[in-house]
Amino acid sequence: MARPKPISGFPEFLPTGRLVENQVLAAITSTFELHGFAPIETRAVEPLDQLARKGEIDKEIYVVRRLHAQEGDADELGLHFDLTVPFARYVLEHSGHLNFPFRRYQVQKVWRGERPQEGRYREFTQADIDIVGRDRLADHHDAEIPLVALDVFGRLHRDLGLPPVSIRVNNRKLSEGFYRGLGIESTAAVLQRVDKYDKVGPDVVVELLTEQVGLSETQARACVALAGISSEDESFVDKVRALGVTHELLEEGLADLASLIRIARGTEPGRVVADLRIARGLDYYTGTVYETLLLGSEKLGSVASGGRYDSLASDGRTTFPGVGYSFGITRILAPLIGKGILTATRGVPSAVLVAVDSEETRDRAISVARRLRERGIACEVAPKADKFGRQIRFAERRGIPFVWFGANLDDSVKDIRSGEQLPADPDAWLPPIEDATPRVIRG
Amino acid sequence: MARPKPISGFPEFLPTGRLVENQVLAAITSTFELHGFAPIETRAVEPLDQLARKGEIDKEIYVVRRLHAQEGDADELGLHFDLTVPFARYVLEHSGHLNFPFRRYQVQKVWRGERPQEGRYREFTQADIDIVGRDRLADHHDAEIPLVALDVFGRLHRDLGLPPVSIRVNNRKLSEGFYRGLGIESTAAVLQRVDKYDKVGPDVVVELLTEQVGLSETQARACVALAGISSEDESFVDKVRALGVTHELLEEGLADLASLIRIARGTEPGRVVADLRIARGLDYYTGTVYETLLLGSEKLGSVASGGRYDSLASDGRTTFPGVGYSFGITRILAPLIGKGILTATRGVPSAVLVAVDSEETRDRAISVARRLRERGIACEVAPKADKFGRQIRFAERRGIPFVWFGANLDDSVKDIRSGEQLPADPDAWLPPIEDATPRVIRG
Repeated sequence: MARPKPISGFPEFLPTGRLVENQVLAAITSTFELHGFAPIETRAVEPLDQLARKGEIDKEIYVVRRLHAQEGDADELGLHFDLTVPFARYVLEHSGHLNFPFRRYQVQKVWRGERPQEGRYREFTQADIDIVGRDRLADHHDAEIPLVALDVFGRLHRDLGLPPVSIRVNNRKLSEGFYRGLGIESTAAVLQRVDKYDKVGPDVVVELLTEQVGLSETQARACVALAGISSEDESFVDKVRALGVTHELLEEGLADLASLIRIARGTEPGRVVADLRIARGLDYYTGTVYETLLLGSEKLGSVASGGRYDSLASDGRTTFPGVGYSFGITRILAPLIGKGILTATRGVPSAVLVAVDSEETRDRAISVARRLRERGIACEVAPKADKFGRQIRFAERRGIPFVWFGANLDDSVKDIRSGEQLPADPDAWLPPIEDATPRVIRG
Repeated sequence: MARPKPISGFPEFLPTGRLVENQVLAAITSTFELHGFAPIETRAVEPLDQLARKGEIDKEIYVVRRLHAQEGDADELGLHFDLTVPFARYVLEHSGHLNFPFRRYQVQKVWRGERPQEGRYREFTQADIDIVGRDRLADHHDAEIPLVALDVFGRLHRDLGLPPVSIRVNNRKLSEGFYRGLGIESTAAVLQRVDKYDKVGPDVVVELLTEQVGLSETQARACVALAGISSEDESFVDKVRALGVTHELLEEGLADLASLIRIARGTEPGRVVADLRIARGLDYYTGTVYETLLLGSEKLGSVASGGRYDSLASDGRTTFPGVGYSFGITRILAPLIGKGILTATRGVPSAVLVAVDSEETRDRAISVARRLRERGIACEVAPKADKFGRQIRFAERRGIPFVWFGANLDDSVKDIRSGEQLPADPDAWLPPIEDATPRVIRG
């Protein structure tokens, strides 16, 4: 086997990167738990017919079938492309065993057969929270979800120096009502084009709307004007009214969004912004939609997004409306880890290397290691009874800060950074707290 | 959408079960880290040609392809069926950035298109440790690996009441040398039949060996006699010699296994047993092989297994021999969680439900919740300003032990199990430590 090459779009980290990712995930999931979200995990596959009806995403689905499938076996399963569709299915399947509103988090890989490009992956990790009700779900949860997201990003900002974020919010009822007020029927097609606003600019969107969707110049200009509106307070309402369009659904969307912005401003002023160009590509959103920009890295696009879906989960008799947020873990971390901006103090858990005098006394070193571990100190025994200088270099290359000598007879421990070596008791010695485990640092 | 049905072989847990699984995984990975294993994660897919050459497993591989793949696109990728093959590839790909011997752990889903049956899954979680060297790897690691496994199972025994385990060890050189000493060429075919010993018994294995592999009755009887040998000490060596077969490779295997048993007995007497019927289905093992039985649940089969592989990872110039162990997390936990033998004190992280007096004062409840969270107390705000009795029942149904009343004005907290309600300060109150987070208990 020749040296294997990476597969484009399927990122992998070295151990140091994975240590960083693990600590970031631990910070995120513990924040989710502080907000009362319970963990679940769903299978990687869903029936293909359930996946392939969610809009533009269809063409990116990966089909899964057995290599030696029987002649005539149908392609039945696909890998999930998000965690919302599987969650909706999970809720329907297990609704008899869940309490509603049901708050859950879920951290898993998802797969999309996209053309790989900077910041896009075919396999990536998402961390999702959702709140789902039975029959109805109160509007105040639409304001709660972005506040949980701000808590998460606040912690990543404090602990890891991640830039502060701005959460951008819109409401599909507002956009759709506005389009209907203009006499437009194909509102989904308009949304898809408006979604490209940031990439191509307002003039190209007008072109797309007139040429591809068949809007008049006036209709297209009005849609683009709506997309240009944003505000940190409720003043967006007046700006929309100034465009002179009226529709019942538009009024509902304006009221919902204004209420959300008002509540969020009470807790986190200026961090949750009404931004009427936010569209989201997925078809299942029916009201509030969110995106998240890293301030100073807006070009990266949205690193966390979500929204309200009122009819994704329904068994015909009962509907389970929900609202949720999805954090693009790989999207946030892969560039930071890849460029060495986030790294760890070492790539191995061991705080101590227990040196081996000779292969005949390896059992003594093993016994010291066991006693250190009993008190929670991560350590490993040197793989070879080399000269001590070589064993120290072994530790040095791995970033292991301490080497233990004289296992069990004349015990001492050396801090290989300072060179200081002191007598030590394997049943009492502790490393300084900052050396006990690898820590995430800025590289 | 009608209520969805589970897909056979793809198990999912309710939140309580996932809480149990998370805590078990945390106990296992922290034990791995105490032994100096660093975390990695590999992509879910590998090139098909790399997957489809590992023996009997081939027919169980899942192929992955884009739903709208281009005409003529080859099937190139498959889901990994274990974590050893991807790890070997990872080592080759990243060898320039790793320090050897390299110790890593990895906890991920794997997929096998097996016929679903009791205790067999198509998607399941494995937790693997491996130690890999460059060019060579010292034999003492073969004795180290099962001692790490015993540490893991010891912790699960103490913390969760899992039964004690017995680790069964064999060596492929021993079996293969024995077969060759009998004049048998098709040693892999013999191993495959001997692997069925526990399921079908010695007489059927003799039949399979004579009818399917073409052995003589004498050869077949000798193979079965070898498979019948086991011992807690080195006495298996004499039992093998008594069968009168000689071969150079057999001697090597006997010496290796005797050395392993001697070292393991020094630390954990009687827990690591030489058992010459252990075969393992995967082709890549070249020396030591391990299986693990839960005492009292031997019928479940091996819940953790592994072995030495000397030539799995090679780029033609450099070979990376390794030894590892794989813990069948789903195999161990799914029956215990499914039957309610392991459960959690509650299915939600929240220790406190903050009651809401009226929708107009929801912001006060939100503020109390924020102050509790700042001190690490998981809580949620009641979704509806219901009568207090209903809010208490809301907490009760979820197992949330405390309800907070009078947010910010006349604060008090009620233990809804005892009914005791006491004044409390949201900036000072703490729940009893045993109520702070859900705990795993025996149901």
